[in-house]
Amino acid sequence: MTTTQALPPVQQFQGEPVPPISVPERLLLGPGPSNSHPSVLQAISLQPVGHLDPFYVDLMGEVQSLLRYVWQTSNRLTLPMSGTGSAAMEATIANIVEPGDSFLVGVNGYFGNRLVDMASRYKADVHTIKASWGEAFTLQEIESALIKHKPKILALVHAETSTGVCQPMDEIGSLCRKHDCLLLLDTVTSLGGVPLLIDEWKVDLAYSCSQKGLSCPPGLGPFTMNKRAEDKLNKRIGKVPNWYLDVSLLNQYWGSDRIYHHTAPVNMNFGMREALRLIAEEGLSNSWQRHRNNAELLWKGLENLGLELHVKSELRLPTLTTVKIPEGIDGKAFSLHLLNNYGVEIGGGLGDLAGKVWRIGLMGYNSNKENVNKVLDLFDSELKKFKN
Amino acid sequence: MTTTQALPPVQQFQGEPVPPISVPERLLLGPGPSNSHPSVLQAISLQPVGHLDPFYVDLMGEVQSLLRYVWQTSNRLTLPMSGTGSAAMEATIANIVEPGDSFLVGVNGYFGNRLVDMASRYKADVHTIKASWGEAFTLQEIESALIKHKPKILALVHAETSTGVCQPMDEIGSLCRKHDCLLLLDTVTSLGGVPLLIDEWKVDLAYSCSQKGLSCPPGLGPFTMNKRAEDKLNKRIGKVPNWYLDVSLLNQYWGSDRIYHHTAPVNMNFGMREALRLIAEEGLSNSWQRHRNNAELLWKGLENLGLELHVKSELRLPTLTTVKIPEGIDGKAFSLHLLNNYGVEIGGGLGDLAGKVWRIGLMGYNSNKENVNKVLDLFDSELKKFKN
Repeated sequence: MTTTQALPPVQQFQGEPVPPISVPERLLLGPGPSNSHPSVLQAISLQPVGHLDPFYVDLMGEVQSLLRYVWQTSNRLTLPMSGTGSAAMEATIANIVEPGDSFLVGVNGYFGNRLVDMASRYKADVHTIKASWGEAFTLQEIESALIKHKPKILALVHAETSTGVCQPMDEIGSLCRKHDCLLLLDTVTSLGGVPLLIDEWKVDLAYSCSQKGLSCPPGLGPFTMNKRAEDKLNKRIGKVPNWYLDVSLLNQYWGSDRIYHHTAPVNMNFGMREALRLIAEEGLSNSWQRHRNNAELLWKGLENLGLELHVKSELRLPTLTTVKIPEGIDGKAFSLHLLNNYGVEIGGGLGDLAGKVWRIGLMGYNSNKENVNKVLDLFDSELKKFKN
Repeated sequence: MTTTQALPPVQQFQGEPVPPISVPERLLLGPGPSNSHPSVLQAISLQPVGHLDPFYVDLMGEVQSLLRYVWQTSNRLTLPMSGTGSAAMEATIANIVEPGDSFLVGVNGYFGNRLVDMASRYKADVHTIKASWGEAFTLQEIESALIKHKPKILALVHAETSTGVCQPMDEIGSLCRKHDCLLLLDTVTSLGGVPLLIDEWKVDLAYSCSQKGLSCPPGLGPFTMNKRAEDKLNKRIGKVPNWYLDVSLLNQYWGSDRIYHHTAPVNMNFGMREALRLIAEEGLSNSWQRHRNNAELLWKGLENLGLELHVKSELRLPTLTTVKIPEGIDGKAFSLHLLNNYGVEIGGGLGDLAGKVWRIGLMGYNSNKENVNKVLDLFDSELKKFKN
């Protein structure tokens, strides 16, 4: 028989009493997170099931199929990493980089620099090509660098969230194959909202996030890799130096073996399934078209207000627009004014663009005409209050 | 002026049409996840806010204060990692292990082996002490191993989810200090449900999960480290070989600088705040007492049914009970029967205990008398159907 053991004394809670949660209403028109679709939030709020429940195992398959569609890929190894987009970014690097591998990064914004930092931690021999924050890379620049650095991996950012630039992808995949190099692509701010064709573009590895074009809260990081990338993974000497993100282990759970790896974030995956299902219901092309139409309305409206866009029209991302902060305006004070008085979030600049631009996102659920008009009206009525 | 660009053609969705989500109702009495508290699910389903929104920054502080209370620690570096418990496990190792460090692991179950695997990937010089799956370590065993292997880190599992053993912690922390070693503790199945005193026990690093004693869905991994562990981190040569889990970067976001690291899983943290708030409202001692009372009811009830428990009474975890599968019973078929016919999930054995035990969890929101009676009634009425 068991007997009740005495419990040790505890320290009382030291802080102020914490009241029940009450979250202010925000319209998230910054670089992300964007607002979630209400039916995604509904799905996330359902009671969890076990991570090996037959129902959940089926759901994992649905998430994978839908993700393949939204990424336009047939890659077997397509799954959401159990962390945010940055975890999925690290997953691509942790699995594919072996110490000493030549790794070329196109740096034309904040997230290129992050790729450099991560790849260095995995002991890649990192090289960079640079473009100014607001420009993309030309095919010529890329090919010269491939010839010079003979990288095993070229990493590019398709949609630079820090600058609003969309990297044109025509021919880059073929160039990489010609030079026997894998192509790794950051699609954090493009998946679901911007034309993105993983297989047709010959992208070998890619990662994204849940909280932008997919209209889901942040917390999952879609990941995909093709057979070419898998071959490199299979040939690596020694284990992947990251247990949590090791695709060879993860595939035993997501693949047909269903071997327990970690306890899946079940509720987030309920939301992911619903988010992807909604895109399939709308149609991927329709989602891309909607993002483009609303972005064009925004661009035109901002220019009509006398504002200047940071990126030339042919390189602009439909999901994220960078607007130059006019001279004499305190950009941060203006954003804070919109947040505090209207519950509207827009972003400021990062890195080279800190203090120079605002970042306006129209992503997923939030890409609609009402939101375009709302943010244009606010720029129209409020910005003048900040002029000296 | 911008002009509408032609969109590329897309491949249609290849799978069966995916209907709106409909999740079966489950009572999760296995090794986790456990059911979530309804008000936690409510919190998670709120629209997200930005990860640098002043409201969210305040909420991060609340989560940290409450987490310190539930862990009984004053550690500055106490925060939920943006991944599951396994990510937090890896965070302790990634930050503290330098190549060549002697790292001693107490292996008396599945999760000890996982610590070995992870520490090896970070190039620790790993040593183990072993106990059979169902036993704990004595102080003498631990001290002999500390003398023999002179580890820089001793890693133990407080609550072995694979066996149902609770490692007695008296004096282990003092032994570690005597032998100049850091103490790393797995508290995945103890936090919130089992007496756990990080500071008093002189635990230097610990990790846990959201989906057991805290009554939150899986997806966050509470993490804490004290000044001794921080000192080792600060002295390390080179960067932490894991960008996502690098505490020196994370602390710039969670600390007063609020420098962007990754986009936080905002909604999961809404849920974490609510989950921790509910424990503070109940009182930590009361939560521990509730878990013990319900576990004792379960243990007595199972023994009254003629079943044998795998762990001797003084080492039993109140949150997870291992029950020997009687001879002649197909344990897996019985679990599946309960799941399919009653919506009740109980777990099977892992590793050395595969096929030998069931694992019954009474964790967080699910630790109540009704659930104890429900599972006992099912064992009473259904198990006989599986006897030859």
